[in-house]
Amino acid sequence: MTTPAPEPLPESLPESLPESLREPLLDQIVQAIAPVGHQMDAAITGCLDSLTKPPGSLGRLEDMALHIGRIQRTIKPSVAHKVVTVFAADHGVAAEGVSAYPAEVTPQMVLNFLSGGAAVNVLARHAGARVVVADVGVNFDFPPPPRGPLAHKVARGTRSITRGPAMSRNEARRALEAGIRVAVCEIGAGAELLAVGDMGIGNTTSSAAITACLTGHTAAEVTGRGTGVDDAGLARKVRAVEQALEANSLPPAATAGSTDALGVLAAVGGFEIGAIAGAILGAARHRVPVIVDGYIATAGALIAHALCPTATEYMLAGHRSAEPGHRIALGHLGLSPYLEMEMRLGEGSGAVLAMHLAEAATRIMAEMATFEGAGVSGRGEA
Amino acid sequence: MTTPAPEPLPESLPESLPESLREPLLDQIVQAIAPVGHQMDAAITGCLDSLTKPPGSLGRLEDMALHIGRIQRTIKPSVAHKVVTVFAADHGVAAEGVSAYPAEVTPQMVLNFLSGGAAVNVLARHAGARVVVADVGVNFDFPPPPRGPLAHKVARGTRSITRGPAMSRNEARRALEAGIRVAVCEIGAGAELLAVGDMGIGNTTSSAAITACLTGHTAAEVTGRGTGVDDAGLARKVRAVEQALEANSLPPAATAGSTDALGVLAAVGGFEIGAIAGAILGAARHRVPVIVDGYIATAGALIAHALCPTATEYMLAGHRSAEPGHRIALGHLGLSPYLEMEMRLGEGSGAVLAMHLAEAATRIMAEMATFEGAGVSGRGEA
Repeated sequence: MTTPAPEPLPESLPESLPESLREPLLDQIVQAIAPVGHQMDAAITGCLDSLTKPPGSLGRLEDMALHIGRIQRTIKPSVAHKVVTVFAADHGVAAEGVSAYPAEVTPQMVLNFLSGGAAVNVLARHAGARVVVADVGVNFDFPPPPRGPLAHKVARGTRSITRGPAMSRNEARRALEAGIRVAVCEIGAGAELLAVGDMGIGNTTSSAAITACLTGHTAAEVTGRGTGVDDAGLARKVRAVEQALEANSLPPAATAGSTDALGVLAAVGGFEIGAIAGAILGAARHRVPVIVDGYIATAGALIAHALCPTATEYMLAGHRSAEPGHRIALGHLGLSPYLEMEMRLGEGSGAVLAMHLAEAATRIMAEMATFEGAGVSGRGEA
Repeated sequence: MTTPAPEPLPESLPESLPESLREPLLDQIVQAIAPVGHQMDAAITGCLDSLTKPPGSLGRLEDMALHIGRIQRTIKPSVAHKVVTVFAADHGVAAEGVSAYPAEVTPQMVLNFLSGGAAVNVLARHAGARVVVADVGVNFDFPPPPRGPLAHKVARGTRSITRGPAMSRNEARRALEAGIRVAVCEIGAGAELLAVGDMGIGNTTSSAAITACLTGHTAAEVTGRGTGVDDAGLARKVRAVEQALEANSLPPAATAGSTDALGVLAAVGGFEIGAIAGAILGAARHRVPVIVDGYIATAGALIAHALCPTATEYMLAGHRSAEPGHRIALGHLGLSPYLEMEMRLGEGSGAVLAMHLAEAATRIMAEMATFEGAGVSGRGEA
């Protein structure tokens, strides 16, 4: 799969800015990300402890309420307006037998997202979330929105990571900025909680390579069966990740802790992974909590973390997937997943499922009676 | 706390039947419980595999869909109509320093449930479930419904289990039958999914004693901090459980695998725990899935299991709580919890939170597009 020049961008979108003005967007966003606020901690904890339940008895729901309260800097956090952004792109490495599915499935699934029939659509309807689909690099000509996805195509798929860089550094930046733009646009329209998901046949291979680079683990440790390859396919994936690290001069041990996240993304990434990283940075910039989905989204989170460690404070880990590398990536980020449902679909499906928990946490804060208001005795008040 | 004669039951309720006619209800229900259907397994699995996702990639959501499909005997299971039944009762042992809260909190929380301010109310509104509150043994005179709870009071609290049986065998049966009636009434009104929860200061002590009896574990192994006792309180709880087993001649090792579940309930149970067991049996009788909440509800599930092992096929474990005995009880039942949120509140709160997952599972079955319908290529169809 070759990487032709990017398609001309529609005049109406911010991408129509001259290249000279576009360069700083990523850097400006990263510089503007501030730590979450701890000023409200006592107020939030006091509020939680005033509610008619033993202190801390709602466990991780209370942790989540505190986390979202810190992010939104309020004792009455709200996630009523929820959006899941699904970024789609193709991968040159898909031609090398690393997936159980053909590359054609990427655009087919994008169209399925748009007609509302995919798992993420069903789960998003159930959670009350809007699904926003963006093409950041699919090898297919979609119709314009609303029949097609948001048009942020950087190129028609990456080059194979096994032979050299997946994309140029400039393309990596453009993928990140596409994600920033999609997230910021949704936040501007009122989104109070984002989830980030992916679609791209071959992208667990790219995620494994990113995870190896940024955590210092070996290809074998971070590579799993993805959507379901057999033993031979798994062996091909491990070899592909090893080749990708070699071809890009990225032996894992040497680059652990590397801060050249843009270089790692360009070398072994995918456009959708870059866009996910960008969406996370955009959310963090605007103090919006963002639920990270499975292995691919977490590879994007690793990129975002490497670009701006503070952004990690805005992340919630929706679930831990069945992929072995996901545990490693979450551990590197210090994130504890809320669900362990052995899901391995992507699309943002696990993140959207966790939205129910985030909303439960915020509704507890907003709607429960207090001991005083309900006339309930506290601890030891016999 | 003494156990006066039960209050006269309202004429309009089924409890107004003469005692002679009421005796067989429990036995009739138990005898009528049939195993879940496996005839539909191939059809359900075929349906799940036809949907636009890699086979099995939704992990435990797919297991849940299969489980509920087996229970409801359909490839289109539905849990749109959801009810959480919260059974409340007092415990004589609460006077012995085993809880961080005074016994007065039991009726106060019942009134809080009725005014919609408790955690279970908030979580049930979020899940789209109705809350049904039943008094099966609270030491308080409530107003009649709707201002008060459903009136199924067996007695005004149990006798302390540390000195002898908590209740008579007849009272144990009446508690079970109260739960059956509440569940069957809700199922008759259309409930497709039940959750069972509890309220009763002191009831983790009773649950620990039941768990020790029915699983063969020691008091120390099955006793935890409940809603939050300190070290001294925990020591008192362990001693109270040991005393309860001694006073009722129920050394755990000797009674593990005992089938006299009614005797165990009468000896160390609570009225709400019996009612929870009855509600589970009622749900199983009518092929309705029932989500078991935390430690107290699972103690009820142990009683239901001992009375009718087949009933266990209708149970889903909503979550694993922070109580150490809960893991033991769930393991005895062979149930894998869906959530691990370190919750320890009771009220059905964890079960209601898991309703989101159950509904997600059924909606996936009902709403996702198929590979054929969406024009998406399957595995290896290049």
